[in-house]
Amino acid sequence: MRVSVPLRRAYKLINHGPTTLITSAAGGRRNVMSAAWVMALDFDPAKLVAVIAAGTFTRTLVTASGEFVVNVPTAKLLDTVYAAGQVSGLDEDKFAAYSLSTSEASIVGAPLLEDCAAWLECKVVPEAHMQERYDLFVADVVAAWADDASFVDGVWRFPRDEDRTLHHLSSGVFITSGDIVKAKS
Amino acid sequence: MRVSVPLRRAYKLINHGPTTLITSAAGGRRNVMSAAWVMALDFDPAKLVAVIAAGTFTRTLVTASGEFVVNVPTAKLLDTVYAAGQVSGLDEDKFAAYSLSTSEASIVGAPLLEDCAAWLECKVVPEAHMQERYDLFVADVVAAWADDASFVDGVWRFPRDEDRTLHHLSSGVFITSGDIVKAKS
Repeated sequence: MRVSVPLRRAYKLINHGPTTLITSAAGGRRNVMSAAWVMALDFDPAKLVAVIAAGTFTRTLVTASGEFVVNVPTAKLLDTVYAAGQVSGLDEDKFAAYSLSTSEASIVGAPLLEDCAAWLECKVVPEAHMQERYDLFVADVVAAWADDASFVDGVWRFPRDEDRTLHHLSSGVFITSGDIVKAKS
Repeated sequence: MRVSVPLRRAYKLINHGPTTLITSAAGGRRNVMSAAWVMALDFDPAKLVAVIAAGTFTRTLVTASGEFVVNVPTAKLLDTVYAAGQVSGLDEDKFAAYSLSTSEASIVGAPLLEDCAAWLECKVVPEAHMQERYDLFVADVVAAWADDASFVDGVWRFPRDEDRTLHHLSSGVFITSGDIVKAKS
């Protein structure tokens, strides 16, 4: 079940470096793209950074709306995560092409994708230099959600293989999130 | 064995989101700190971003030298990765405290740590606003190295559990890099 995550804990949803799917919407159009270059930037207020390349349809929609959602897909979406990085949403509606189910976000216009383990609703912080020079977007996390079967008491668990997160290596080869180990304190 | 990685492939060394150890050196002092917030920023020329908090000894050394190394530790260094995030190198030499072996980097003054799977030698790109407002450092990757038992033909393999990379969740709980899966192309 999707449950709200306190914003000060939102960084935990991406701290282990999963590859994400970024959804966006503006002017009646929407898109989804794969994004491995997404990282937490601050705890409280919660911020993240994401690389959104110039020339992509996602860039157009994010620039127009000032919003996006970072979805953390599970292994169920393996083929989609790879495919969504290979084609442009300008040419086709990837939600229809890949039979992706969505639901409404709580604050932003971009949709939340099903078969994900976590969702971070984001509003862009205007940083023109970083966007133009590095394709790097700073964003405030304004709402965060997780699947309570996978994210329990503020820590990830992966009860089944299909619930594991995906971490892109290259060319469609991913590693899944592995075993949990604990350091001596 | 440590082998050179072409710079255009350096992003692959951190694309799966491992937690890293950042080493730095200046004026006869050196330090090592844990850093989960490190991410590739560009392919060619290779760039990355890293959050290096204000007030840390690493920040002092990186600011003084304009250099650092992103080391990608294996599970052998589990306890060290956690411990190195808990104390300041201003108070003690963490290399001695944790019995860390090092070797010289090829270009920068910061050392390379043993028991790691990859190393990215970095030179800071002067971006004062990003550093001051977000503690975010942009850097050029000027040399890259990987253990050729773990990084083979441009893709990670993890032949033994102790060779897996570490991905911090929180409070000393990590996941290790898991199984390799391939998407349909």
